[in-house]
Amino acid sequence: MDYASILQEIQQESNGFPTKGNVTLTIPELAKVSPNKFGIHLTTIEGGDFGIGDSNEKFSIQSISKALTVALAFSFLDEKIWERVGVEPSGTAFNSLIQLEHEKGIPRNPFINAGAIVIADMLVSCLKNPKDDFLAYIRLISGSPTIEYNLDVAQSEKDTRFRNAALANFLKSFGNIENDVDVVLDFYFHQCSIEMTCNELAHSFYFFANEGKTKEGKQILTKSQVKRLNALMQTCGFYDESGEFTYKVGLPGKSGIGGGIVALFPKVFVVATWSPKLNRKGNSELGMHALELLTNKTGMSIF
Amino acid sequence: MDYASILQEIQQESNGFPTKGNVTLTIPELAKVSPNKFGIHLTTIEGGDFGIGDSNEKFSIQSISKALTVALAFSFLDEKIWERVGVEPSGTAFNSLIQLEHEKGIPRNPFINAGAIVIADMLVSCLKNPKDDFLAYIRLISGSPTIEYNLDVAQSEKDTRFRNAALANFLKSFGNIENDVDVVLDFYFHQCSIEMTCNELAHSFYFFANEGKTKEGKQILTKSQVKRLNALMQTCGFYDESGEFTYKVGLPGKSGIGGGIVALFPKVFVVATWSPKLNRKGNSELGMHALELLTNKTGMSIF
Amino acid sequence: MDYASILQEIQQESNGFPTKGNVTLTIPELAKVSPNKFGIHLTTIEGGDFGIGDSNEKFSIQSISKALTVALAFSFLDEKIWERVGVEPSGTAFNSLIQLEHEKGIPRNPFINAGAIVIADMLVSCLKNPKDDFLAYIRLISGSPTIEYNLDVAQSEKDTRFRNAALANFLKSFGNIENDVDVVLDFYFHQCSIEMTCNELAHSFYFFANEGKTKEGKQILTKSQVKRLNALMQTCGFYDESGEFTYKVGLPGKSGIGGGIVALFPKVFVVATWSPKLNRKGNSELGMHALELLTNKTGMSIF
Amino acid sequence: MDYASILQEIQQESNGFPTKGNVTLTIPELAKVSPNKFGIHLTTIEGGDFGIGDSNEKFSIQSISKALTVALAFSFLDEKIWERVGVEPSGTAFNSLIQLEHEKGIPRNPFINAGAIVIADMLVSCLKNPKDDFLAYIRLISGSPTIEYNLDVAQSEKDTRFRNAALANFLKSFGNIENDVDVVLDFYFHQCSIEMTCNELAHSFYFFANEGKTKEGKQILTKSQVKRLNALMQTCGFYDESGEFTYKVGLPGKSGIGGGIVALFPKVFVVATWSPKLNRKGNSELGMHALELLTNKTGMSIF
Repeated sequence: MDYASILQEIQQESNGFPTKGNVTLTIPELAKVSPNKFGIHLTTIEGGDFGIGDSNEKFSIQSISKALTVALAFSFLDEKIWERVGVEPSGTAFNSLIQLEHEKGIPRNPFINAGAIVIADMLVSCLKNPKDDFLAYIRLISGSPTIEYNLDVAQSEKDTRFRNAALANFLKSFGNIENDVDVVLDFYFHQCSIEMTCNELAHSFYFFANEGKTKEGKQILTKSQVKRLNALMQTCGFYDESGEFTYKVGLPGKSGIGGGIVALFPKVFVVATWSPKLNRKGNSELGMHALELLTNKTGMSIF
Repeated sequence: MDYASILQEIQQESNGFPTKGNVTLTIPELAKVSPNKFGIHLTTIEGGDFGIGDSNEKFSIQSISKALTVALAFSFLDEKIWERVGVEPSGTAFNSLIQLEHEKGIPRNPFINAGAIVIADMLVSCLKNPKDDFLAYIRLISGSPTIEYNLDVAQSEKDTRFRNAALANFLKSFGNIENDVDVVLDFYFHQCSIEMTCNELAHSFYFFANEGKTKEGKQILTKSQVKRLNALMQTCGFYDESGEFTYKVGLPGKSGIGGGIVALFPKVFVVATWSPKLNRKGNSELGMHALELLTNKTGMSIF
Repeated sequence: MDYASILQEIQQESNGFPTKGNVTLTIPELAKVSPNKFGIHLTTIEGGDFGIGDSNEKFSIQSISKALTVALAFSFLDEKIWERVGVEPSGTAFNSLIQLEHEKGIPRNPFINAGAIVIADMLVSCLKNPKDDFLAYIRLISGSPTIEYNLDVAQSEKDTRFRNAALANFLKSFGNIENDVDVVLDFYFHQCSIEMTCNELAHSFYFFANEGKTKEGKQILTKSQVKRLNALMQTCGFYDESGEFTYKVGLPGKSGIGGGIVALFPKVFVVATWSPKLNRKGNSELGMHALELLTNKTGMSIF
Repeated sequence: MDYASILQEIQQESNGFPTKGNVTLTIPELAKVSPNKFGIHLTTIEGGDFGIGDSNEKFSIQSISKALTVALAFSFLDEKIWERVGVEPSGTAFNSLIQLEHEKGIPRNPFINAGAIVIADMLVSCLKNPKDDFLAYIRLISGSPTIEYNLDVAQSEKDTRFRNAALANFLKSFGNIENDVDVVLDFYFHQCSIEMTCNELAHSFYFFANEGKTKEGKQILTKSQVKRLNALMQTCGFYDESGEFTYKVGLPGKSGIGGGIVALFPKVFVVATWSPKLNRKGNSELGMHALELLTNKTGMSIF
């Protein structure tokens, strides 16, 4: 497969794509990002690396981090994590409190905010120095020792924390947060503030496509475990647009409101895109379009 | 009307009433109260005072305070308070977050927790020394200078604050809280911790039944304003059991999870009951029963 | 009280009232009504009758009939009707199916469509010739032997029945409809199609204000029963605007999408208004305004 | 891959599996089925056929038919079908009306009842003789000219139709049903009543796994179209347990309350299971278990 040519075609066809969305306004620090950034990086399990556009520029991975925290929690607790969070699509927006009330504080899945906060609470309990240890984990799986939190972004999320603080307190009222709410939220805001390039992001998810092993050969999860997390990304990775993404793109993946998307074809490749303009559902418009083009051009959908 | 005899009859008939409910467990400090307490005090606008049972024993008025904070906020802001809180029955439990999400942070009415927290926020903005000034107001309207906050109860509510903290943060995320969440909650937990006897409670609501004037003749609200707040108590005063109370008792009133209920017949009387065992909806079982007996025996319903 | 003068004042002040609402479009036959009709009739228990404007013109009473069917069902089944329908405000629109799903087919109250359909089913079971017998009942309580169904309106409701057919089938799926769905709906569409003048409407509700007795002295319900139905109208009579009506007008009443409203002050008067332009909640804009003026001018609120 | 041996292992291990579920009670005719039936049939694209247990016994495919009606509607209308039904998981039970109210009559996906009824309406519009033509289509794709409707089951569904009649009328009230409600429901009840063996069911879905072509080489849909429908089965095929099935089994599939499940690995195999005892979510307990074993033993998940 000539991925280099295909990415170039996508870049050309994406130029004319009429994006109507906007950069997120929910976190002031992220609202400063240039809306026209666009990059893609694709890394194959065979060893190829292909990048276009702004693929080596850092951006805030935001909710994409939720797939990495659940992977780390899974390595500590395995199937026990599902006692406190589900594996079903929510059918509602990423920050909704409604289902939580009906379902007694058990979030539908770890990719909506409520679920990710429960996972953050698990990591705060499991890790000795939660923020340091999680950063070390990210550096390990990505092979990039320079990945950092963006402290301005983390602070900006804290300053506008009220919806997430509502979720965390609500979860705590049902007994589904063990630690202090402020400590859990501090960890959560930091995980969301991690910055990566498309290149780094693709490599961070390499082990999901490589039966649990990083590019450097480190076994992070078992083959069966990554299979299960890939399945979870398929049904729940794009908030209440997960069905649409699965329908159009046909690959498991995860998006973030920083405009990043990562998707993967098991045993074949991982691809990361970045374009900050978001559609109504909070997913990158151009990123989704680019990945649909990629699936169509390569014929590589898992379905 | 021979209220003294009627109250005695009610006391006798209530002895045999099979209450199945329990003292509230949501606030540990309140869970310590003896479940078998029972008192009634009725004060007439003509000047009569009639008490039975434990009517001179202090209890935590809890949500009954919501009618008093809304009265105080009404005296500052008049109809402007309805820009931030509605006047409709909620149809859901007192601490539900569901409607709030659909209705963009405008609580249905000031008697559900979310609405009362918005009112608390208004008072924090309006009052110079919110806690002191509110206590002074309570002492003024009741004519009882010894009414106090119970600081152990306030602390107990703070220690188990998570549901209310979720509501307050949620409201803040919609821009419907002006002040710091912790400051507003501190005021709210104090207002709920006020202790009164049935006698004091009946006198505190005297002005609602007396066209806005206290027993001592002080005009607290206009005649039209108390009419409107009485109407509001009628439709919303008993959480999602307001319809039932109106149907059976036919008087405007307000309940609290401390087991207190206050109800009034405009221009005729105010009556306060206390019995800590609550039904499924969070209202005092025996209190509701006693008030139904009172309406039946006196024939005094507003309908 | 000089009701004649007050009604004239109301008529004058209402002329300038800027109604933005529209005549209902949900039932084609009703959409033909002239939007500028406006009438009021007030009848006192003492024997006075006061009418202004189009108070002697017929209009479709629509949902106002729900108070009359529940009165008739109450006379057959008394408190047993509450086994199949509640007495709580719904907090949702009049034709919502949502609560019904959560609450297993028991409608919140008899004044939302679902509840009224359950009451219609009870009458189909209780009455020998349901449509004839109900019409006879209406003629009896109103003292007007010429009141009729409007068969064109009934047919128009049948032709556009789908939402109500959904409700009736949904209720049947929970076992809360005994008779054939089509038979129940036929009765329901007929009851809604009844036409009255403001004058006739006020007299139809006379017994609610007169301790259960019609103007002609016939005891329709007991004193306690009408008290209870008045209470129910207070909390539930205006769909999800019941709180607003209670707050502003302070009288029990019932509205219909034909633009009629009836309200009453127990032991004093019954008043009926008609103006077809509806607000967003489906209640007559001018009718609500006129009744607010009436309460303000007379000082006669029950609160 | 030695599918024959693997199926035998599954059969043995399934014998000891403690199923707690029950045969569906919602349709009386289906409640008569023996609860201990169990069969599997697996057909490979390479041409192998492997059956165990009751794999040649007919059962009611029920909701599995929804994947076949959507395939037929897709061949007529292509992407235009998504103007009237979505592609997102619902997050709620298969027969819920709640989302439909919020979302103005556009069902979340074609595999919940509301969505399937909209698809049935499309087919009633597209097909000359809907019931005959659909049966012909089923015989064509399965290669089994003897497949039939079970008229007793269709009648039984009609006799207990009230929930589905509520859905259809509700959809019609939003303008999302073109034809007469009774005609659409008659078609819908017939499609659900189709009976197949596991063998026939596996062959009916052969074209989903074979890039749109039946075993006999007939092109039913394009390669891209079946990819998209497979994606849809993955996210929505198992009601509010779709996430769980994806997580555990990792194959696109569809279940029915007759106890059947069909799943497929694109370009490799189709597998059909039958065991009538259902779990709380309405999916065959033993069928799901057997497919989880199959994925684990073969290592053949798409993720």
